[in-house]
Amino acid sequence: MIPDTLTQGQYDTVYNFLSLVIASQLFTAVFLVIAMPRILPRYRQAITVAIVVCGIAAYHYFRIFDSFKEAFVSDAAGGAGVYTQAVGASFNEGYRYVDWLLTVPLLLLELIAILALARKVQTSLLLRLLPAAALMIILGYPGEMSDDNMVRGIFGLLSTIPFLYILFVLFTQLTKSLASQPASVRRTLSQLRFLILLSWGVYPIAFLLPILNIEGSDAWVAMQVGYSVADILAKAVYALIIFYVARMKSYDDDPEFALRENSKEDAAVYARR
Amino acid sequence: MIPDTLTQGQYDTVYNFLSLVIASQLFTAVFLVIAMPRILPRYRQAITVAIVVCGIAAYHYFRIFDSFKEAFVSDAAGGAGVYTQAVGASFNEGYRYVDWLLTVPLLLLELIAILALARKVQTSLLLRLLPAAALMIILGYPGEMSDDNMVRGIFGLLSTIPFLYILFVLFTQLTKSLASQPASVRRTLSQLRFLILLSWGVYPIAFLLPILNIEGSDAWVAMQVGYSVADILAKAVYALIIFYVARMKSYDDDPEFALRENSKEDAAVYARR
Repeated sequence: MIPDTLTQGQYDTVYNFLSLVIASQLFTAVFLVIAMPRILPRYRQAITVAIVVCGIAAYHYFRIFDSFKEAFVSDAAGGAGVYTQAVGASFNEGYRYVDWLLTVPLLLLELIAILALARKVQTSLLLRLLPAAALMIILGYPGEMSDDNMVRGIFGLLSTIPFLYILFVLFTQLTKSLASQPASVRRTLSQLRFLILLSWGVYPIAFLLPILNIEGSDAWVAMQVGYSVADILAKAVYALIIFYVARMKSYDDDPEFALRENSKEDAAVYARR
Repeated sequence: MIPDTLTQGQYDTVYNFLSLVIASQLFTAVFLVIAMPRILPRYRQAITVAIVVCGIAAYHYFRIFDSFKEAFVSDAAGGAGVYTQAVGASFNEGYRYVDWLLTVPLLLLELIAILALARKVQTSLLLRLLPAAALMIILGYPGEMSDDNMVRGIFGLLSTIPFLYILFVLFTQLTKSLASQPASVRRTLSQLRFLILLSWGVYPIAFLLPILNIEGSDAWVAMQVGYSVADILAKAVYALIIFYVARMKSYDDDPEFALRENSKEDAAVYARR
């Protein structure tokens, strides 16, 4: 539940974290647009998806930021540095779900695209992962919007089923595909699944807080900070790791490209291969 | 502490300096985007990072500028040309920390990337410098946000430890790496460390002012001007020097490129080499 009042410190913390997410997503997207020629064409589709994901996230955080600014107003009567909920405005958590509905399937697409698997394997993975991702978000939404813990619990549980299925596919089917990846990126790709587990895991935890009766303004601020950090990890940091993988695979695929893109010392290493 | 009132002159000074920073950062970024083909591909990753740093700084100065405009309103009762703190708005210094948290590690990455060292040396330097930079900013934040000089002092001191460590690495470990750089840029790169020392040194000085009881509106205005100048030096001017180094190294690496990129007179000099 959205708290009735926030202290100056709580207000500033949420404010600064929301702004941090905007800056992180926006400039990760800018970085990737400019850095696109630094990878081979066959990996640029994955990076294009990553740019779109970070762009969509930046857009929604602009909205969340504005919604937050409008929802809380400084209360002169309450003394300096106290913010109360504005009459007729409410903080819109729904933006997060609209964001996730678009970005979560794209995040999985990003991962599959960077693997550059045979089309048949790729299609089979996408047909399983993307609908599951969309279903996970759609089922979570009615729970988030409800003030009834029963409704929240039921939809939370339903939403967990596709989440577990996604993890199952990532940790079993994808493991097989890792064997076909160059040695230089196999470890990074394997760790990327744990970044997904870690950062996506924040959302069900935040979802559970009201059910566990962890409420009040401190819990709410912690939840906003948690969502913000999770979104930075799951989209911006994730995209940069995907870019790193794309670069390593590009060097591996094309020694000429590696020569041009690396320091003279490292280029000598590639030339000797 | 943020002063209760500002004169017209003080208000305009802060206003104009904040705008100067926006223009400097934004158009350094624009310049670098357009100038990217004027350097060899192997140095473009460093310039891409520089563009992102200047872009992030421009974004945050837009926010700081807006926050400043909302925090002070012209006070009719106080007579013409007097600005008082607006009820329910406060100037948000936190944006500076959010900015530094993202840009300071990237500034070090920029410097390491332009050196184009062997990957092993590079990774070792980054693993030491980047976490230290993030730690320095994170430890400074609670001190900046506190009105208690004791808390400010303790966190200021803690934050100084990673700062000194960064300087130590830059002035010892990096010195060794300078030997591998072409003669044409060795002096510039060596001087760049002094630009870091000089421009980064402004921040701890501004941090100390309240502890030294240097308060009041003049001191606050001086601090805002100091931060602004330091940010221009540490990001925009720094980026342009990095670009100059990238260009010199590009000529050095590829005489053909030097021929195309220089005046006919200078090209003749390169041709004789």
